Amino acid sequence: MKEYKVAVLGATGAVGQEMLKILAERRFPVSQVRALASARSAGKRVYFAGETLPIEEATAESFKGMDIVLGAVGAGAARAFRPAIVDAGAVFVDNSSAFRMDEDVPLVVPEINPEDALRHHGVIANPNCSTIITMVAVNGIQRVSPIEAMVASTYQAVSGAGREGIDELEAQIAADVQGADVETHIFPCRIHKNVIPMIGDRLENGYTTEEMKMQNEGRKILHNAGMNVCCTCVRVPVIRSHSISVQLRTRDAISVEQAMEAIRLAPGCVLAQNLDGRDYPTPLDTSDQDQVYVGRVRRDLIFGDRGLSLWCCGDQIRKGAATNAVQIAELLTK
Amino acid sequence: MKEYKVAVLGATGAVGQEMLKILAERRFPVSQVRALASARSAGKRVYFAGETLPIEEATAESFKGMDIVLGAVGAGAARAFRPAIVDAGAVFVDNSSAFRMDEDVPLVVPEINPEDALRHHGVIANPNCSTIITMVAVNGIQRVSPIEAMVASTYQAVSGAGREGIDELEAQIAADVQGADVETHIFPCRIHKNVIPMIGDRLENGYTTEEMKMQNEGRKILHNAGMNVCCTCVRVPVIRSHSISVQLRTRDAISVEQAMEAIRLAPGCVLAQNLDGRDYPTPLDTSDQDQVYVGRVRRDLIFGDRGLSLWCCGDQIRKGAATNAVQIAELLTK
Repeated sequence: MKEYKVAVLGATGAVGQEMLKILAERRFPVSQVRALASARSAGKRVYFAGETLPIEEATAESFKGMDIVLGAVGAGAARAFRPAIVDAGAVFVDNSSAFRMDEDVPLVVPEINPEDALRHHGVIANPNCSTIITMVAVNGIQRVSPIEAMVASTYQAVSGAGREGIDELEAQIAADVQGADVETHIFPCRIHKNVIPMIGDRLENGYTTEEMKMQNEGRKILHNAGMNVCCTCVRVPVIRSHSISVQLRTRDAISVEQAMEAIRLAPGCVLAQNLDGRDYPTPLDTSDQDQVYVGRVRRDLIFGDRGLSLWCCGDQIRKGAATNAVQIAELLTK
Repeated sequence: MKEYKVAVLGATGAVGQEMLKILAERRFPVSQVRALASARSAGKRVYFAGETLPIEEATAESFKGMDIVLGAVGAGAARAFRPAIVDAGAVFVDNSSAFRMDEDVPLVVPEINPEDALRHHGVIANPNCSTIITMVAVNGIQRVSPIEAMVASTYQAVSGAGREGIDELEAQIAADVQGADVETHIFPCRIHKNVIPMIGDRLENGYTTEEMKMQNEGRKILHNAGMNVCCTCVRVPVIRSHSISVQLRTRDAISVEQAMEAIRLAPGCVLAQNLDGRDYPTPLDTSDQDQVYVGRVRRDLIFGDRGLSLWCCGDQIRKGAATNAVQIAELLTK
């Protein structure tokens, strides 16, 4: 069995550390793993497969001899390192938003469009986290009948803002319990005992970059260029699973039973039937897992017999980011 | 100026105590205030206008001589006491769901349909909390052009489950910080660091009683029998303000600017423009207030030029319950 030299770029962040964990957990066939980060972290160590790896400073030289680079850095750093990675002959599986909409870059959710991964030119993009979770949830329905329109309101965990987002919620909780001042640094305002309807940067049309990803990336993943998505992204005080309330209209009529069966059969998707006696998932039910849970499947009350309403949850750091990237890397080994 | 004898039925709960606070705050013209509750609480005292009132056990005799009874008890108790209240000649302004859809009972949001209050036969119903907040938010738009369809996903505070709901979240936070077991009694599962997409009882169509109130009560309040509403109700770890993500389709085309102007002019409604530099409200911005805040008004991406998307927040205990009831009582004094 061939073994691969894999580098994780951004190995100190929440997603980078989870990538290392998942490479080990899924026994990805590695002959070497390098943990790369900024100069600031060089010399520290990170866990991998029961040992620790030294963090090396990422430079243009870091990628020589590597087969696969898993990117867990921001869009700016991803753009800066791309030429060096591609020149080194490695495949760059990038979690940032930098290349997702580029025509020559596949945008892949392995349960949905694995074949796209094989058409890469050195870069494969990992989609936005809420988008991955929502698309895995609706993929089964889309296969029964194309989705024409979707309304999505998200309930997004603080892990979406990285390790600092998690730390900020925990610090605010601690301060509040101690009666101390609650400080805000990462989010636009306090998130403890609050929700914030603003994620990403605002665009001309009033939506945010984060909200438009659900439509733009969703179309590319599902190969459904005509799908319109109206999304509202909201941060909630939850650690690491995102939830999404979805209403959709398909091209053809579809019964609730058909939809539930399609969800049950869809890869990576679990129809919630008995979670401690509940038939709907919550973020806590789905944390530290790779599957997307779907519940509350019912006839939508606006779109008639082509309309469905559902609720889905999935771990943002795992399926929404690190696991999906490792799954893409697995496609390259087949 | 005429003064009124007012009883608060259920004076020990979160809403009942708030009703007493708001009667004093708004200088409702009272000559007498009685605080009624179950036998269990009789003898205790509650705050009113800088003093305390004794809690009296509510019996069929309690309402004699009263002009107005503000009800903050469950539907069962409301049904049980209704005959005694009406026989005593008092007007029953009831916050429970018991009578809201009865044809001879007005369902009133004073900023929207105050005239309905005057057609009462002894009982006036206070609508569901999320419904009040959403209808105040969309009332201005509805006056420009009738709303045909609405999708609503809620972010509901724990106060919607009463004092016990607030206590449960606070206890779970404290237990978690101390590393103790987090216990769940009121909600179907843990709410701290979680969200729960299930409020109310499940109906045949898969929706909950709470979700169908948005459509059924919304139609009655807006006098818009044809409005279809697809609602998903979700509990979030927030203390006392509800938020709602709303997408709607009006009968006629309406511009975003027209909609914003309509919201700005709508009674009880604030178009968020500068909340600490933000142009959208969060639950914390709107707690302990009576106004409903609206933000993120934008063109919906599904319904074309008849579609709008918006976000609104309002205090569940105040405008969603106690203040609205006291405002209804004020209509009776005019």
